[in-house]
Amino acid sequence: MINKIDHIGIAVKNLTVAIPKFNLLLGTEPYKTEIVDSEKVSTVFYKVGDCKIELLCPTSKESTIYKFLEKKGEGIHHIAFDVYGIQKSLDFYASRGINLIHNQPKIGADKKEIAFLHPKDTLGVLIELCADLINDK
Amino acid sequence: MINKIDHIGIAVKNLTVAIPKFNLLLGTEPYKTEIVDSEKVSTVFYKVGDCKIELLCPTSKESTIYKFLEKKGEGIHHIAFDVYGIQKSLDFYASRGINLIHNQPKIGADKKEIAFLHPKDTLGVLIELCADLINDK
Repeated sequence: MINKIDHIGIAVKNLTVAIPKFNLLLGTEPYKTEIVDSEKVSTVFYKVGDCKIELLCPTSKESTIYKFLEKKGEGIHHIAFDVYGIQKSLDFYASRGINLIHNQPKIGADKKEIAFLHPKDTLGVLIELCADLINDK
Repeated sequence: MINKIDHIGIAVKNLTVAIPKFNLLLGTEPYKTEIVDSEKVSTVFYKVGDCKIELLCPTSKESTIYKFLEKKGEGIHHIAFDVYGIQKSLDFYASRGINLIHNQPKIGADKKEIAFLHPKDTLGVLIELCADLINDK
């Protein structure tokens, strides 16, 4: 059901510092920024080949990204896989004993449906599943 | 200079546990396994779209992956970018104030030249640069 790696999410504390740094590292500028109110994060997207790098910066202390930064510091936060059929994928993983953070997809950044698997069942790797709202098969 | 995301490296403690788990998560089996003596790791590669997932399991307590697991536990270890001209890329980053773990590329898994940037200068993200030995431009 996995089509490809959609993006890698990176938690950062300060976009004023992080954006010039990633512009330098990636040799390109972000193609978009988006505040996701429901997640209390500002997101910044770079294209890298067929995938994306997503910077995630908390807009509130209630953001899960704020808590991640407090606990682990800046760094890679999650891998997102583009899937065909996000609900079907969630049901498949649940039936195989993988706990889900979200039993149903919700709307995330970049006009996508998203849902996370529980990292305790994926060897510490926080995995997001995502699918385009209009193209999900 | 970055062509694409080549792979995401994931540190695991036990391949007997990790391989069936990633077979389930990724819906496919590894296309190869390789012991990299110089790094004291066993590596296991999966294709995911145009990128790869690399599991890294230490073969010795001297492995940097062993030390990573002791300190941080299982999870995402690094992102590897496929670049055109690995030495040129290293020189470019060094000239812009990014400290390098390796000033020159060395031979890594998967018949590639590899080198790492220092995560203290990349907002906590451990970044590998890699290039095919025979195709590097």
